[in-house]
Amino acid sequence: MLDVQAQTVEGLRASLKAGLDEAMVMTDEANMLRYCRDWHGDVESSAIAVIRPRSVEEVSATVRFCGELGLSIVPQGGNTGLVLGGIPDAPRGQVVLSLERMNAIRAIDTDDFSAVVEAGCILSEFKDAVQEKGMFFPLSLGAQGSCRIGGNVSTNAGGINVLRYGMTRELVLGLEVVLPDGTIWNGLSTLRKDNRGIDLKQLFIGAEGTLGIITAVAVKLHPNPEHVETALLGLNSLDDAIKLYRRARRGCCDLMSAFEFMPPVAFTLAMEAIPDLRMPISGDYAAYVLMEISGSGLVDTNDLMSRFLEGVMEDGLVLDGVIASSRAQAQSLWLFREGMNEGQALRGAHMRTDISVPLSRLADFVAEAEAALAEKMPECLAVSYGHVGDGNVHLNVLPPNGSSRADRESSIYKAKVIVNDVLDRYAGSISAEHGIGRLKREDFESRLGAVQRDMILRLKKAFDPDLRMNPGCQLAVQPAS
Amino acid sequence: MLDVQAQTVEGLRASLKAGLDEAMVMTDEANMLRYCRDWHGDVESSAIAVIRPRSVEEVSATVRFCGELGLSIVPQGGNTGLVLGGIPDAPRGQVVLSLERMNAIRAIDTDDFSAVVEAGCILSEFKDAVQEKGMFFPLSLGAQGSCRIGGNVSTNAGGINVLRYGMTRELVLGLEVVLPDGTIWNGLSTLRKDNRGIDLKQLFIGAEGTLGIITAVAVKLHPNPEHVETALLGLNSLDDAIKLYRRARRGCCDLMSAFEFMPPVAFTLAMEAIPDLRMPISGDYAAYVLMEISGSGLVDTNDLMSRFLEGVMEDGLVLDGVIASSRAQAQSLWLFREGMNEGQALRGAHMRTDISVPLSRLADFVAEAEAALAEKMPECLAVSYGHVGDGNVHLNVLPPNGSSRADRESSIYKAKVIVNDVLDRYAGSISAEHGIGRLKREDFESRLGAVQRDMILRLKKAFDPDLRMNPGCQLAVQPAS
Repeated sequence: MLDVQAQTVEGLRASLKAGLDEAMVMTDEANMLRYCRDWHGDVESSAIAVIRPRSVEEVSATVRFCGELGLSIVPQGGNTGLVLGGIPDAPRGQVVLSLERMNAIRAIDTDDFSAVVEAGCILSEFKDAVQEKGMFFPLSLGAQGSCRIGGNVSTNAGGINVLRYGMTRELVLGLEVVLPDGTIWNGLSTLRKDNRGIDLKQLFIGAEGTLGIITAVAVKLHPNPEHVETALLGLNSLDDAIKLYRRARRGCCDLMSAFEFMPPVAFTLAMEAIPDLRMPISGDYAAYVLMEISGSGLVDTNDLMSRFLEGVMEDGLVLDGVIASSRAQAQSLWLFREGMNEGQALRGAHMRTDISVPLSRLADFVAEAEAALAEKMPECLAVSYGHVGDGNVHLNVLPPNGSSRADRESSIYKAKVIVNDVLDRYAGSISAEHGIGRLKREDFESRLGAVQRDMILRLKKAFDPDLRMNPGCQLAVQPAS
Repeated sequence: MLDVQAQTVEGLRASLKAGLDEAMVMTDEANMLRYCRDWHGDVESSAIAVIRPRSVEEVSATVRFCGELGLSIVPQGGNTGLVLGGIPDAPRGQVVLSLERMNAIRAIDTDDFSAVVEAGCILSEFKDAVQEKGMFFPLSLGAQGSCRIGGNVSTNAGGINVLRYGMTRELVLGLEVVLPDGTIWNGLSTLRKDNRGIDLKQLFIGAEGTLGIITAVAVKLHPNPEHVETALLGLNSLDDAIKLYRRARRGCCDLMSAFEFMPPVAFTLAMEAIPDLRMPISGDYAAYVLMEISGSGLVDTNDLMSRFLEGVMEDGLVLDGVIASSRAQAQSLWLFREGMNEGQALRGAHMRTDISVPLSRLADFVAEAEAALAEKMPECLAVSYGHVGDGNVHLNVLPPNGSSRADRESSIYKAKVIVNDVLDRYAGSISAEHGIGRLKREDFESRLGAVQRDMILRLKKAFDPDLRMNPGCQLAVQPAS
């Protein structure tokens, strides 16, 4: 292995172009920018090169050759991650390995309820292809028009359907992975049950590319839910929303597919982003829930939703509500959920969190954190919303409009300390679904117990002894001297 | 570390009693027998001692002290495993560490849909405790009256409800594990979503105690399905049964909780074990399906089952059927499924398999394997049944009644070669749900690719460098000299 520090950037670029198929290697700074800047535009970096292989063999060759040059690799899918897991942080020693050209759907087997898809396939394109065959791939998240399956698996993505279908991990049947030494592991089984020893694929799901590069994925498919009922409900409090969730979990059994909590300010924010939105409920309520029940075949979801809402309105748990009478109306209800994210972005840089606590403690946690913020940062707006059924809340803090960049940065830091301080007392997670990446690494490491840290290091050193796979992501590991 | 070979059995036993709380240490051969003999009674072994700790601290102390003595550890739950994963194979160098005294239910949180239970708790006792609180723990298997949760997790147990609720892996939220050096890892989170880096608990699920000892488990609970519909159906073929499964998967959506396939001989076998069983369907059919739909709250499972069966009978896919009209009747239908296992056992030693293939190839696989057996071993009876919806079939081969032990052994060996030969051509698994243990180790190793083998060895050496955790289970690993 060469000493990368002793080589010039230009020398390394020339070596990459000479040693690999030149068509894979991008070194122009302007072209590389979109691979080196995060989705929010908060961070801009650079790299020796962006390499875009078209096959698993080319990924393998790239990994081997970068190893010979002493270069580290930052794997990247659609670059929609929220924690800087795919953004290089050592421009003179790293290449970005983009999977975007490995985007084929290798197989969809409707008889087997399974599919095999390459890492670079865009999530929504895969979902559409599957739906054309009457099947359903449940992973649903805001970025689905740009994110890529390999990134979803590497980060174990969540989204709005987790409460019914689980995180990405639960949708994966098999993986194809290029290991840090360039070896290709073909673990692309579509077997639904396979208990042959340790389940190696689990290592790479959620590892954010620190143990290897996922190049293809075998997944479970579900029958397409032809019947979908969507309702927007007004309630008295988050506490009542959680009571409603528990009741829906029993009353609607496994047919509930989404349960999103929104505060009143969500509608203001959504309408700032999408001005022609109109409030679908007339009264003002302290809390809102967007709830979805879905099913296929003979299951009567319409009757189920009606009877469920009848009961909870009779009991005064739900104060008012509207059920979408068409797909179009359902989509417009979801626009509030999506628009509130865009509205927050329009208000400029702010603190975003991705917190989970046990469901039984969620309402207390939010009340305590919001009270602490109101006391110490009364000028800021706290917005708590999210996948309440999973105990997952995004408690975001928005500095006042017109704040300077420096003020925003200081508010973000201050708010994070306040919220994490409450969170630690609730034994919660600082990352329910977004991962650790580079953005949350310090907060992760400072909370990491010695035993767990040692276990992660054992894994890392067993699979990536030269520490070349996505260094700086998740954990700052020092090479053995 | 002492050289265990240089010490006498008596010396080691005395050291264990001196170094550990003597009440934990059992060394009497007669008392140890039930821990050293497998559930079928096929294999009898012995050990230096059976150690039964009462707390995680005692497990840790045991692991450390055995390390000092140079002894290996075979962890054991309810000793109901089918692949000898918990039976010692080196009586002069191993202790059995039984978790049976660590059997407390630490918490059941109905608001959070979660529970924490110690490894030694018997599965059915845990299920009952949970059900008393209106909740449901879905893991359901024949051994549930004796197996223990820690063993279920270590083997990633399957059972009859996998098609709806997943394998044990999908029910686990957190683990407490004693690592091979005696360190206690407390990973007992009940968070439903937690994406803080690599998911370490996955390593131990399905590892059969080769990487550490699971001492407690945090699990997901589901609402109790108060409405259960059970039907026994007569069909023309396994192929039609698979067609029926596909139709039920769509028609009944996620409410189908079991779909078991049985051949006609299942009833003969069941009635040999339980003589007062009466055939619930009058005609003779080539294939039978035991199907269950279940739900809680407002979901009308009765109406769903009726409408589904109406449709498939009208189309001639199902020829005849009976729906249980009471819980008692449903239980008597399930007695056929359980009785057929007992009936096979009564016919003496036979070949048992636990195979999975992709669902779309299952009927072809069974036809081909049964044809090969009929041609080469016409004197034996092949019985194929199981969890067809998961692609999981138990294709067992019974030698003729009255066969000698030697003839049985030779038939079992011959049948295994024939079936595995067909299986390999279908890219199937030799262990869908039972694990590898010691019984299937050679068949596993001989099919293991070099890459996968290397990955397992890296893991093993990273976590258990002295190779003291369940040596001989899953893989024969040689110490580095």
